[in-house]
Amino acid sequence: MAEVESIRPFGPARSTVKGEPLSKEEIELYNDFFKASCYLSLGMIYLKENPLLRDPLKGNHLKTRLLGHFGSALGQICTYMHFNRPIKKHDLNAIFISGPGYGAPAVLSQSYLEGVYFEKFFKSFSFPSGIGSYATPETLGSLYECGELGYSISHAFGTVFNSPNLIALTIVGDGEAETGHLATAWHSNKFLNPIVDGAVLPPYFVEGDDIETMHQAMAATLEHCGWTGPRKVDNNYLAGFWRAHQVPITDPATNPQHLKILEEWMRSYEPDRLFDESGKPIPSLRALCPDSNRHMSVNPIANGGQLRKPLKMPNFKDYAIKFLWDVIAANQTNFRLFGPDETESNKLGGYFEEDENGGNLAKAGCIMEMLSEHTCEGWLEGYILSGRHGLLNSYKPFIYIIDSMVNQIEKRLKVEWRYKVASLNILLTAVIWRQDHNGFTHQDPGFLDVVANKSPEVMRIYLPPDGNCLLSVMDHCFRSINYINIIMSDKQKHLQYLSIDAAIMHCTKGIDISTYESLAAIDLLLQHFPELKICCVNCVDLFKLIHPGDHPHGLTDKEWMVHRLTYRRPGSKNLHVRGYKEKGNIDTPLELAIRNQTDRFSLSIDAIDWMPKLHNRGAAAREAMLNAQIAARNQAFETGMDSPFLKNWTWKRNGQWNKVADGLASR
Amino acid sequence: MAEVESIRPFGPARSTVKGEPLSKEEIELYNDFFKASCYLSLGMIYLKENPLLRDPLKGNHLKTRLLGHFGSALGQICTYMHFNRPIKKHDLNAIFISGPGYGAPAVLSQSYLEGVYFEKFFKSFSFPSGIGSYATPETLGSLYECGELGYSISHAFGTVFNSPNLIALTIVGDGEAETGHLATAWHSNKFLNPIVDGAVLPPYFVEGDDIETMHQAMAATLEHCGWTGPRKVDNNYLAGFWRAHQVPITDPATNPQHLKILEEWMRSYEPDRLFDESGKPIPSLRALCPDSNRHMSVNPIANGGQLRKPLKMPNFKDYAIKFLWDVIAANQTNFRLFGPDETESNKLGGYFEEDENGGNLAKAGCIMEMLSEHTCEGWLEGYILSGRHGLLNSYKPFIYIIDSMVNQIEKRLKVEWRYKVASLNILLTAVIWRQDHNGFTHQDPGFLDVVANKSPEVMRIYLPPDGNCLLSVMDHCFRSINYINIIMSDKQKHLQYLSIDAAIMHCTKGIDISTYESLAAIDLLLQHFPELKICCVNCVDLFKLIHPGDHPHGLTDKEWMVHRLTYRRPGSKNLHVRGYKEKGNIDTPLELAIRNQTDRFSLSIDAIDWMPKLHNRGAAAREAMLNAQIAARNQAFETGMDSPFLKNWTWKRNGQWNKVADGLASR
Repeated sequence: MAEVESIRPFGPARSTVKGEPLSKEEIELYNDFFKASCYLSLGMIYLKENPLLRDPLKGNHLKTRLLGHFGSALGQICTYMHFNRPIKKHDLNAIFISGPGYGAPAVLSQSYLEGVYFEKFFKSFSFPSGIGSYATPETLGSLYECGELGYSISHAFGTVFNSPNLIALTIVGDGEAETGHLATAWHSNKFLNPIVDGAVLPPYFVEGDDIETMHQAMAATLEHCGWTGPRKVDNNYLAGFWRAHQVPITDPATNPQHLKILEEWMRSYEPDRLFDESGKPIPSLRALCPDSNRHMSVNPIANGGQLRKPLKMPNFKDYAIKFLWDVIAANQTNFRLFGPDETESNKLGGYFEEDENGGNLAKAGCIMEMLSEHTCEGWLEGYILSGRHGLLNSYKPFIYIIDSMVNQIEKRLKVEWRYKVASLNILLTAVIWRQDHNGFTHQDPGFLDVVANKSPEVMRIYLPPDGNCLLSVMDHCFRSINYINIIMSDKQKHLQYLSIDAAIMHCTKGIDISTYESLAAIDLLLQHFPELKICCVNCVDLFKLIHPGDHPHGLTDKEWMVHRLTYRRPGSKNLHVRGYKEKGNIDTPLELAIRNQTDRFSLSIDAIDWMPKLHNRGAAAREAMLNAQIAARNQAFETGMDSPFLKNWTWKRNGQWNKVADGLASR
Repeated sequence: MAEVESIRPFGPARSTVKGEPLSKEEIELYNDFFKASCYLSLGMIYLKENPLLRDPLKGNHLKTRLLGHFGSALGQICTYMHFNRPIKKHDLNAIFISGPGYGAPAVLSQSYLEGVYFEKFFKSFSFPSGIGSYATPETLGSLYECGELGYSISHAFGTVFNSPNLIALTIVGDGEAETGHLATAWHSNKFLNPIVDGAVLPPYFVEGDDIETMHQAMAATLEHCGWTGPRKVDNNYLAGFWRAHQVPITDPATNPQHLKILEEWMRSYEPDRLFDESGKPIPSLRALCPDSNRHMSVNPIANGGQLRKPLKMPNFKDYAIKFLWDVIAANQTNFRLFGPDETESNKLGGYFEEDENGGNLAKAGCIMEMLSEHTCEGWLEGYILSGRHGLLNSYKPFIYIIDSMVNQIEKRLKVEWRYKVASLNILLTAVIWRQDHNGFTHQDPGFLDVVANKSPEVMRIYLPPDGNCLLSVMDHCFRSINYINIIMSDKQKHLQYLSIDAAIMHCTKGIDISTYESLAAIDLLLQHFPELKICCVNCVDLFKLIHPGDHPHGLTDKEWMVHRLTYRRPGSKNLHVRGYKEKGNIDTPLELAIRNQTDRFSLSIDAIDWMPKLHNRGAAAREAMLNAQIAARNQAFETGMDSPFLKNWTWKRNGQWNKVADGLASR
């Protein structure tokens, strides 16, 4: 034990909140509880046999592959167990959100002591298809921690929004705190509304490693926090408490001295006294846990589908544009719209107005904006996973900033035994095809590439071509459960093709009608090749294209089929898809200007010398290039239309759009 | 003007550094420079004709689509122009890194005043294939800002690492500061080494909007910073300075009153006096700029390929494992290894040792670790874009956290007129196929999906199957320029298939040999179907599979062809690829235990009641399930081998691996 004890850096507890609420007997009880928790954590990491150390420890009792981070367990255990006291005393509704990586031993030890797990517990830890070494989606009381670090704070806030009586006891890992996801989520406290969400108290600090004073300090701090209702206690004071953060002794199976140290260490937690022969904790320990309806390890909030109430849905057929507005107004404690500072830019700014009936929509904070895709997505996840509904609106070119988060929640939504939560809805605007003014860097469809490879049971992609179709799709998405719905709809003004009834029909069929430029292209084709027969298909539900064996929305072979998505389709060879392709080269601005015959700017000789391609052409040639003056062709831009095709179409067929809107099939 | 002036929130300058270094005449000169800069910024946003306002402003002089964020321009202009003073005075080598979104008017106005751009300047701004409204990759002096916010701090630090004489003048946007990328990058200052990188001074604050005192304060502050050599000045004090952050007046073309206000506003900057008839700034303004070799707008650092020196490369054929160690040791000021806290875990920990010759490798900080993929990637980008070499090592399951950043630098590397920089090398370990202990959430190959769609000229994917092949691939990647090399190599111990010479041959061919499980699968197949003819192909260079028309590494049709990648290949129908497929369902832990006949844990009745699938089966059934005890089959795990296939193979063919390593083709 000397090796372990020698590195204690702290000593007696120092804490913000003073007090000694525990009696001598209670300190002993909590000390036992802490010992039992530590014992269980070590047992999960090391033991596959001899779980209670009733026999001397031998190398063959040990697991071969040692996993789990012991260093991150102690602080979490100490926080969890001491918060059980205020839970019992004040009948609090609390959930535990574990941020540190591979910290499952902490959570699982508490779950075991609450009586949720029993038998074969050590052996199953971190074993393929057993219990994960971090709080996996399958971990019962976990809101979810997924291996990718950084979600804890935004998830915690998402969980307590509109849940004034819920306490999210949140542990932030020291490594996690360095991630982009977490670093920006600290702003979340600015978004808590004291009326609908309750207040957040300033953090309280507890540090030390002297067991008795630590129990007093933790009990005093957490009782104070619990009674006054904070939403957060963050805590990583245990860094450095033991020598190693992960597995403290890595070679006990082969090093007899280390095996001896490990055995002494484990026995110091007194498993003989604290667990009965069957491995159950002794009654005095169980008595420190709340009643089962208040166990943090099985709080219904962490299985939020159980609490989900359907949205009150206005009839979308009655609406032109203000549908979302009324969805928000009718569900002020059950729906939120999140967005990274683009809500106004994305033409949803109308929703910021005050309710004309004098309501407190603005105060209730149903629309939340912060320029962090990570935090907005995390908020939305916490909000829906705890049983509510929501929508993230963002900008298609940069949504792939959070594609890893979408990947992770997709995995959570697939845990079949959980109650179904509301769908995670993402509305993407500013499609990549209309980024000619922003240019190359705003052009990337990579997010859909990622999404298209995800599980058919969870992923949905909708591409409504006009406002009425968008209404129909949004209505469907808000009513749906347990999907990730990606809805893409450009924010610029567009033509209206379909009446509301036609739109419903088209969206139900999933595959129909058309978009601007394809129509304009058809017009040009028909001018030049009048004998051509053209059928223009717009796909609202992208997964209609896949084989029905691979996605439940897939049409049967008789009905329809696009290359990669249409693999296994008859006739797929006759179909050619022209999608986004990364440009090969970017020329100098000057060369571009010459090639495109456009009216551009000039560069100084100094600047041109700075470019290797031009540097070698000689001063005269460079001078000549420099002075090249080219005629302008800025027409399309000046009209405000990005697309010359569209301009041509409207000039050619002015007034004809209404007819097309009646139904393309009739052409 | 009243509308503009009425919202000034600040008043006279308040600043950390006091002083009045400017004479009355100098204040007037800098005021003129500031006016000219503001005028150019407004002109870029609004004007397509009548650029110098020699005629009264009319609606048809205005652009139809107004783009550019004026609000973010003023602070940047003020910082840039006042830093020209210390640059001139002390002959400083400085680069300007612009973080705020759509802030190009600030940078471009300075570039114009330095004489780098001239003619047709306003008209080309934010026009398709013209000058971008943010500091695009094409923007001359831009290290690069790409629309996706958040890169400025990590890029700035990457640029000054091992550049003790360089000053990166960095502007952080207020929106940018909320992004995950930026929020975590503030830790970068902890990583600057005062010996090799120089020191960073604490930030200095300047705020106010009274022009004269602001000029004095900015001059005093920046002269102080410049003289003492800071690396950063961050500055977003202008938020709120004008009413609007983006385009301040949005409807001057249709609102005559607003047109009048705009004209008065623009004329207040005195374009008649500050620009000659051809639009050139008057000589007294040009005199405030540094000589052309010190212009921040064309600093060679921002075109870092110009400064790139090849690495000193040891002969990799002489090495077993320590190759990378010696690359680092031989290039201590020209190479860095970056990683998100996984360098030790990824078996590169040996590199942390002290140089045995007593060198100061550790002090020089050639290996940098922080648990932020965003910051590590940003550092690497800044480091190579400013002319050096580096490697990011990370963990395949979570590399897609930064796939948006990889997408963006790919676009930068394609700007053909820039000097070529060293390749961006990413070494990925912990492949998804070996995540059975971590489970489902660590399994996702989405990063390669994204990368495989990127430009063939830039993207390279290498999958070396053993250590010698890895050496050969790394040697190639470190010598290469202007690529993004993704190298995937599992961190666990593996079999060695090839001698070093065979490895070079195989890696040069790009497509050859095999991996563990496919070999084991072949063995099983041959046991059960001895008549089968099997050819096992391992692909080191993934792009060998694409048609040569689509990627320069593509093999010709005679040589070879995998489904999506082999589109257009003859015989592609006979090839079946079995890749990663997201699992359909996750069962309850209990059901999994029953199905897999494994020895798992049990759950309490409370916990089972919490799962809707089990809740409805009745107490007796639940009790029965709860008590189900199943025999164990933990063999594979206990051996330390994850793969039962592998175990079978080594048992069946013990000792045969060497023969296979001599060349699979001979089977």
